[in-house]
Amino acid sequence: MREFLGIDAGGTSSRAVLVDAEGRCRGYGRAAGGNPTSRGAGPAAAAVASAIEQALAASGGSGGAVEVVLLAHAGGHEDYLPGIEGRIAPLGVRVPVRPAGDLLALFASGTHETEGAALIAGTGAIGGVIRDGRLARVVDGTGWLLGDAGSGFAVGHRVARAVVDDLDGGPTTRLTPALLEAVGLEDDGDRVPVEGRPPVMNRLVHVLYELPPVQLSGFAPLAFALADEDPVARGIVQDAVAALAALLARVRGHQSHGPLVVGGSVLIEGVLRADPALAAPLLDAAGGASPVPVADGLVGAAVLALRAGGVEVDADRFARLASGVRAAAAAWSPRV
Amino acid sequence: MREFLGIDAGGTSSRAVLVDAEGRCRGYGRAAGGNPTSRGAGPAAAAVASAIEQALAASGGSGGAVEVVLLAHAGGHEDYLPGIEGRIAPLGVRVPVRPAGDLLALFASGTHETEGAALIAGTGAIGGVIRDGRLARVVDGTGWLLGDAGSGFAVGHRVARAVVDDLDGGPTTRLTPALLEAVGLEDDGDRVPVEGRPPVMNRLVHVLYELPPVQLSGFAPLAFALADEDPVARGIVQDAVAALAALLARVRGHQSHGPLVVGGSVLIEGVLRADPALAAPLLDAAGGASPVPVADGLVGAAVLALRAGGVEVDADRFARLASGVRAAAAAWSPRV
Repeated sequence: MREFLGIDAGGTSSRAVLVDAEGRCRGYGRAAGGNPTSRGAGPAAAAVASAIEQALAASGGSGGAVEVVLLAHAGGHEDYLPGIEGRIAPLGVRVPVRPAGDLLALFASGTHETEGAALIAGTGAIGGVIRDGRLARVVDGTGWLLGDAGSGFAVGHRVARAVVDDLDGGPTTRLTPALLEAVGLEDDGDRVPVEGRPPVMNRLVHVLYELPPVQLSGFAPLAFALADEDPVARGIVQDAVAALAALLARVRGHQSHGPLVVGGSVLIEGVLRADPALAAPLLDAAGGASPVPVADGLVGAAVLALRAGGVEVDADRFARLASGVRAAAAAWSPRV
Repeated sequence: MREFLGIDAGGTSSRAVLVDAEGRCRGYGRAAGGNPTSRGAGPAAAAVASAIEQALAASGGSGGAVEVVLLAHAGGHEDYLPGIEGRIAPLGVRVPVRPAGDLLALFASGTHETEGAALIAGTGAIGGVIRDGRLARVVDGTGWLLGDAGSGFAVGHRVARAVVDDLDGGPTTRLTPALLEAVGLEDDGDRVPVEGRPPVMNRLVHVLYELPPVQLSGFAPLAFALADEDPVARGIVQDAVAALAALLARVRGHQSHGPLVVGGSVLIEGVLRADPALAAPLLDAAGGASPVPVADGLVGAAVLALRAGGVEVDADRFARLASGVRAAAAAWSPRV
């Protein structure tokens, strides 16, 4: 039996799926984050190998039948691929690990078509146009400092700034007690300045500068949670939606036709679950096309693995693959 | 003769001035940056000691008559004061180094009064209210990540983002050729995407992420230089002025009376030299009070040194001190 491995190596977790040429899911595995930039090349490679090992074990077979290993990741660190190859060779998998971009894998997780567009807003924000099964054009995705408008970082950063501003005498917001609790600071309500500033403000500023800046993205959910009741939180969410709508409009300026696939926690758990009035500008920018939401790029990694092996992925095979991977992911539990 | 040393330890340079009890300037010295956060405690202490040594040498006297050494700096690293004391003891200066905040020293550089307000917009942005010769209240100054709206960082950051956005298909701006030249990148005009993006954009993003984020403040002058001719640059300057006007309004909400002293490159070389229509919101926020611009906190450090020694600094003594320090700074040249 011909077998194919697709892996989605994200910042939080690495997921691997073993599929056959008909798109049937034969095994699934999940391990720690596999992003070499945030985790280091060695730990990232080990996490990816662990996910692969689980998928192989679940299938009950050896790795000898695997024809293609396709790894979707954020890119820029191809030098960790040999580390993965070295770790999976003892499992019988002796083919090279092929990299693919996370944006292309996300797109291929939502459709069997090979033309269209993708928009991700997670920690970062990026859009892309796919033509002939390849990423033809990217918009934004330039990172927390230089771009990523509308991203989780952008929202969480605004949350942090709004709370510091509140404590500094700016507009009051319910984000303040929420953020102080999130970082484990007690607010005794004392606003009498010490060395010119309220003591809790000094403590918060200190705590926030201890974090790597990109971790401010962890505060983005506070803005979505409070958007219905707090004007400051609502303003932050509105600005993020406007930025994502502008990003999508620019993407669609490069796109000829095909579906729009969307992913990332800010879109899936934030914007698309928010008050419809808040999400409206983004749906307007989609121009009537109904966005296809996907959880991650794992189905797409399997699709790309099949295609790399010369297997055509039509609508039927795609549907089988997507439902099989969904079921396997839902049934998965960590080995003790 | 009674002698007093005032030192302003900034990020770019450290300046020291030796004055007598009448406010006459007896010696001046200048050395490398004396900010322990950016330079490290040892090099910062050595720079401060070098500036002091020059000021003593210029006066022709020994350090034995120095009653007070007052060091104005950004604060937070008092642990480098002993390093300074150890280096100036061999010069005969055997009194402790007293620290003072840079905001208070800046205020005292502009007036002999002991009530009023100060606003600095350099790399950062901070406002403060002075009462009874002490800093009673601070507004903002929370750094590039969490505050400093209207600062050199905020302006330079916006410049960098605007240029990346231009290269990514956003609004065209004359900031783009200016920034590419500033970072030494050739723009061949090729906008055909490679891996989804124009090549020069990839190179620029790479170059900018190599910098410590706070160094983006170095691009702020580009926005002021192009504000008259480029709408994107003008918008960035307008937003910065609006942010500084809001900061000033909040400061004045805490202030009872007294002058407004202003400093920092963004205010002195940027806003106050710009098209008056651009600066208008800030002057409006000053509420008719004419801001007193100062170059740095050196005069104020000397004022605070005199006061710490029990010497009253009235309008006459202040005027003598300020003009003497200005003349000495203008006449100074580095020792070969």
